[in-house]
Amino acid sequence: MNEGRTGVWFVGARGSVATTATVGLAALAEGIARPVGLVTAGSAFDGVPLPDFDDFVVGGHDVDETPLVERARRLATGGMIPAATVEAVAHRLDAADAEIRLVPRTARGSQRREIGLRADDIRSFRERHGLRRVVVIDVASTEPLPADRPEFHDHDALVAALAQDGVELLPSSTLSALAAVTGAGAPYACFTPSISLGIPALHAVAADAGVPIAGQDGKTGETLLRTVLAPMFSSRGMRVLSWAGANLLGGGDGATLADPAAVESKLASKNRGLHDLLGHDVVTPLHIDNVPDLGDVKTAWDHVHAEGFLDTRITLQTTWTAYDSTLAAPLVIDLARLLTLADQAGLSGPIAELGYFFKDPWGSEEHAFARQADELVSWALRTAVRRTTAQVA
Amino acid sequence: MNEGRTGVWFVGARGSVATTATVGLAALAEGIARPVGLVTAGSAFDGVPLPDFDDFVVGGHDVDETPLVERARRLATGGMIPAATVEAVAHRLDAADAEIRLVPRTARGSQRREIGLRADDIRSFRERHGLRRVVVIDVASTEPLPADRPEFHDHDALVAALAQDGVELLPSSTLSALAAVTGAGAPYACFTPSISLGIPALHAVAADAGVPIAGQDGKTGETLLRTVLAPMFSSRGMRVLSWAGANLLGGGDGATLADPAAVESKLASKNRGLHDLLGHDVVTPLHIDNVPDLGDVKTAWDHVHAEGFLDTRITLQTTWTAYDSTLAAPLVIDLARLLTLADQAGLSGPIAELGYFFKDPWGSEEHAFARQADELVSWALRTAVRRTTAQVA
Amino acid sequence: MNEGRTGVWFVGARGSVATTATVGLAALAEGIARPVGLVTAGSAFDGVPLPDFDDFVVGGHDVDETPLVERARRLATGGMIPAATVEAVAHRLDAADAEIRLVPRTARGSQRREIGLRADDIRSFRERHGLRRVVVIDVASTEPLPADRPEFHDHDALVAALAQDGVELLPSSTLSALAAVTGAGAPYACFTPSISLGIPALHAVAADAGVPIAGQDGKTGETLLRTVLAPMFSSRGMRVLSWAGANLLGGGDGATLADPAAVESKLASKNRGLHDLLGHDVVTPLHIDNVPDLGDVKTAWDHVHAEGFLDTRITLQTTWTAYDSTLAAPLVIDLARLLTLADQAGLSGPIAELGYFFKDPWGSEEHAFARQADELVSWALRTAVRRTTAQVA
Amino acid sequence: MNEGRTGVWFVGARGSVATTATVGLAALAEGIARPVGLVTAGSAFDGVPLPDFDDFVVGGHDVDETPLVERARRLATGGMIPAATVEAVAHRLDAADAEIRLVPRTARGSQRREIGLRADDIRSFRERHGLRRVVVIDVASTEPLPADRPEFHDHDALVAALAQDGVELLPSSTLSALAAVTGAGAPYACFTPSISLGIPALHAVAADAGVPIAGQDGKTGETLLRTVLAPMFSSRGMRVLSWAGANLLGGGDGATLADPAAVESKLASKNRGLHDLLGHDVVTPLHIDNVPDLGDVKTAWDHVHAEGFLDTRITLQTTWTAYDSTLAAPLVIDLARLLTLADQAGLSGPIAELGYFFKDPWGSEEHAFARQADELVSWALRTAVRRTTAQVA
Repeated sequence: MNEGRTGVWFVGARGSVATTATVGLAALAEGIARPVGLVTAGSAFDGVPLPDFDDFVVGGHDVDETPLVERARRLATGGMIPAATVEAVAHRLDAADAEIRLVPRTARGSQRREIGLRADDIRSFRERHGLRRVVVIDVASTEPLPADRPEFHDHDALVAALAQDGVELLPSSTLSALAAVTGAGAPYACFTPSISLGIPALHAVAADAGVPIAGQDGKTGETLLRTVLAPMFSSRGMRVLSWAGANLLGGGDGATLADPAAVESKLASKNRGLHDLLGHDVVTPLHIDNVPDLGDVKTAWDHVHAEGFLDTRITLQTTWTAYDSTLAAPLVIDLARLLTLADQAGLSGPIAELGYFFKDPWGSEEHAFARQADELVSWALRTAVRRTTAQVA
Repeated sequence: MNEGRTGVWFVGARGSVATTATVGLAALAEGIARPVGLVTAGSAFDGVPLPDFDDFVVGGHDVDETPLVERARRLATGGMIPAATVEAVAHRLDAADAEIRLVPRTARGSQRREIGLRADDIRSFRERHGLRRVVVIDVASTEPLPADRPEFHDHDALVAALAQDGVELLPSSTLSALAAVTGAGAPYACFTPSISLGIPALHAVAADAGVPIAGQDGKTGETLLRTVLAPMFSSRGMRVLSWAGANLLGGGDGATLADPAAVESKLASKNRGLHDLLGHDVVTPLHIDNVPDLGDVKTAWDHVHAEGFLDTRITLQTTWTAYDSTLAAPLVIDLARLLTLADQAGLSGPIAELGYFFKDPWGSEEHAFARQADELVSWALRTAVRRTTAQVA
Repeated sequence: MNEGRTGVWFVGARGSVATTATVGLAALAEGIARPVGLVTAGSAFDGVPLPDFDDFVVGGHDVDETPLVERARRLATGGMIPAATVEAVAHRLDAADAEIRLVPRTARGSQRREIGLRADDIRSFRERHGLRRVVVIDVASTEPLPADRPEFHDHDALVAALAQDGVELLPSSTLSALAAVTGAGAPYACFTPSISLGIPALHAVAADAGVPIAGQDGKTGETLLRTVLAPMFSSRGMRVLSWAGANLLGGGDGATLADPAAVESKLASKNRGLHDLLGHDVVTPLHIDNVPDLGDVKTAWDHVHAEGFLDTRITLQTTWTAYDSTLAAPLVIDLARLLTLADQAGLSGPIAELGYFFKDPWGSEEHAFARQADELVSWALRTAVRRTTAQVA
Repeated sequence: MNEGRTGVWFVGARGSVATTATVGLAALAEGIARPVGLVTAGSAFDGVPLPDFDDFVVGGHDVDETPLVERARRLATGGMIPAATVEAVAHRLDAADAEIRLVPRTARGSQRREIGLRADDIRSFRERHGLRRVVVIDVASTEPLPADRPEFHDHDALVAALAQDGVELLPSSTLSALAAVTGAGAPYACFTPSISLGIPALHAVAADAGVPIAGQDGKTGETLLRTVLAPMFSSRGMRVLSWAGANLLGGGDGATLADPAAVESKLASKNRGLHDLLGHDVVTPLHIDNVPDLGDVKTAWDHVHAEGFLDTRITLQTTWTAYDSTLAAPLVIDLARLLTLADQAGLSGPIAELGYFFKDPWGSEEHAFARQADELVSWALRTAVRRTTAQVA
């Protein structure tokens, strides 16, 4: 079914994840990459009418001016993605690069105006390409958690403050989310741990978005493993006493997370699911270290100590090694496809079942991965039916 | 609801698993151990009418004469179970020991007669204690896989051969299974990889058992982990290329599995689930080494190599360390409780949902652990309802 | 050669290390333990005249009043040391306990007076038992590093301050070291990372001790491994780029090291040797986490990333698991024996070759373990000869 | 000091190790690679007069006709070596390729004639380039160990058999070694586990070679680690009870070692050093698995179990991951340099100190790595002096 093309607007469009996703989407569209690592390419999604890879047009915002093809070549040099693939899709990268708009680090006038300018970019992208919709996905660097403010709890005060020139109240992730959801009426996903729509005064905005939204903080590696393994211990009645973790990574992400302020939001969402899944107090020391020489290869070591029958000691160690951005990129493409489906079916507000992709699911308390996977598939099938009905009606 | 007491008859009643289970059951009955490591003690089973720990009477068969309390003390010395617990339940161990009957290593007369003698032991145990039922669970050492024989495929020929004195056709695990199921009408579970009812000519016997049965080969450690992790890779579209494993253990099990003939059946069932779950060819080298100095502590290292998006390399290593018998023992108690429930509800033949406990489930092709866990809970609730109906009727 | 008995005076005599060492020394003296884990029991020391295990008399200082036999039983319950061994040497533990003197947490009067009182305890122990010498070994909990003070750099000012009542200038480890070295003329070793004689104004005291001294911070587990492995990378020309570490432990040590102030001195000495051995800048993130459920079992994970030929990536991960106190205790006995030898040979000041036992060797820059081992053996042989000469003369 | 150029003749000149070494030597000569991973580039060798990288001319034997530059490109595609480096030295690879002579898989006439033909190739290479000497290094694939034969123990019978046409008595590694040592008078090193000069009847030939020789079986990864770690346990009096290992690798080496006959010689030399170093019986299960998807990246997991003080359990796990050929290649270059030095100094027969490079040192029983490293450096300095004397005289 041809529905017209769909836009994907990356917040952080020249970062590692967006660059990898853009290269990957281009390579899939060209038929020179296989859809390995994509959830929606699995047989469980057979028959679900999702956009083809070639149906997407890519654009976005960034604070950096380095051309996308240049960023992609750096990733290839670091061994993250194949150099031949980058060259084969260079023309598509240039086309995407032409759709990236610079955003300044501070608001242009009031923050309300900044939101408007960002929304304008999205709308104009949609019109320029005659797109049916634009899905906005935040894959920018992790921001520090903002200090709490009275306006964060009072919608009217917040609105008033946003109108004032020179008041820097909201972090950039929130501005982008509002530009997408309230400004441009665009489906939105927050793949980062940044606060985005998590400001209490914006909860109602999120709930009544009028477009489908999903978040937050992509569940790619260590946390994925944890939400797979923790239910095993619970089901078998083994009592987990501690779950310690060490994360080593370099690259831009390593440097960002070396900042204790930025890492705080990350650590919080990494541990939250674990506590929920195990259902009792458990000791969970967790560290993220910036190790520049490792580049974008992330190594995570976990040590789990559980008590078994008759006070016996059970330990499990896991060491996970992967390029973090190539774990994230296909999930971002999955989200673009599934939010398109959700939008076609007329859904709005937080889509609980997309919690499958996130450390900190919006609209859901479920963290157990296998259960999330079943719910996602079932949701996709239901939504496919609903979409048909919606289109007939 | 008091239903009378239930017998548990261990094949291999003086082995490590049975000894640990008997100590544990006694400690639970005395209220000096917590039900950690038991599946059926989880909140998911709230309201399911399972026998209390004190409702069980233990007996069994073994080829060894060492008193149970002596075996338990050796396990305590090796650090497997607490010495204080053993001493606190010594009187219960002595009582169980008095209910253990020796079986010879070769049949007493024909194998049919041997089956009959073993069944007599079970029946007489039931009568002596006025038990409503006896659940038979095979936790004996792994046998070598028997060489194939024409009689294994021809029920009549098998029956005829069993009647002949001096013909040693069936391995001991099969004799015990037949003694339980056809001889004593006892619910039966095979917790070992030994062939038991896996002889083709006996498939009909298993299917028409008239009692609930379950098997086979307890899923306790490395294989448990594998059936938890493999569905994660599949759901996320990561293509597992190889899954290699090294198992180190000492103790009696280590020595048994150092015999290449005995290990064959073990390795086969360890890899089977993995191939099923991943759905494509995958390289799975697997070794079990006897390392006597490690005693009953088993260490398993797995190395998984998967392909991710854009040909990226993902590796996961896991190291699992635990006392194998204290992983197995609570599951054996779970099986005794759940087979009692099944029998009360009038179920017979292989119970597919008990496949949750096994590497090689009877009556089910499902290996994915999380799905098995959901199915088990749902089955227990359904069976609880059915049991009530059966009892009213 | 009978030389009379030797005293061992433990600072922290009721802590885990001292308790384990006292139990072990008693068990060795009784002939019910083998000298596994002792360096000086190796064949390389054949012919070196070291005191027999039964030649030692144990006493010490502590702030805690729990009887030694009670502390030992707790360690046995935690699985650290065999319960049977504790009971078999209970009478020796009681005898040692009777020789432990309480020290208050703040000085009794001036710190000079406190030093004097502690020295009195040591001298009176020596006289009471007619000992030839007392070796003092600090195995107390790690102290926070004291903030720098002008008096730390000016010996006269320090002496003046020590004489004033109520001035708490020096930490307890320094008071004990001075009590031993200047007060009681006792050979002294600092097995902890606490500052002890590391105050600049005391460097001359250490150098002119008149008795042999050794330190500091026992090299037992992860650091031992690092100083074994780092020279391999150097010799082979592989360029180590990062060496990250995660340490998990509970017990008293875990709790102490959860205090960021206390851990600071520990982390500093753990990384110092690494930098020296690799000879260039290397990224060395290192964490120590308090994981109470692990008890005294310490697990250390290290991840080493090195560059090889033609920019190739080499990684090494190590996971080390051991009871920390049973690693330390035999080394403490080794030090008691070797400091006795040094004292008999008339040596004084820091013994560089005893740096083999420490993360932060006094009098030596050598950290490479294999070289330290060779130097230690060679020193022991030379000192044995010198001792004979000293005694003849 | 200019001495004329030196030839390096690789047996297996188109295999992964030789290809990597040839690329590396070329890149070092061109100044586009740093000497990382080379032992002889370390500061310990400052002042030792070793040939410059540009002094070497490369040639060799192989059974394969694929051009060297093609082999190098395949390694680059697999991520083993940088593609840019390969292209930058392509002209040097072509030059080396022109010096590679094909050897057939069966002898051309008698084996004596085959030896002669191989020696002719080496001599003619030397003359063609006016080389002062040619160092021959066997880096071919591991051969199966030949079955024992009476001629292997009787030099005269061996000589007689070699003269007979069609008799295939000696494996190819031995033919190449004899061609080098007795035929061409060339210094020789055996970097593989193949039997080479290990035939008993050839021991005298090795001892009286007239040229310096060294072997055997390069100590590159897991065995290197083991000979570094084992002395630590010994020095500290910890009693190693078991040392288990699992090796995963693909590539050509993986396939070769999947052949149980070929792996036998490899496993034997891997375990030999361990037993020597620990000095007592120790359980050492060891497996090498062919895992094609891993390519030339080798992953080795070791699990060490040691007994500490008071029966305490100590475990160490190591996981080592590296491209095996880039570990081996710089050592091969080191050997070419050091054998040149030895030859210049007039040394002949097995050079015990070069045992540093090997699992199974010729002429030495020393396996402890740190001691080997000290002996190597000391030998190089002595030999440098001797070389000067030899040249003056």
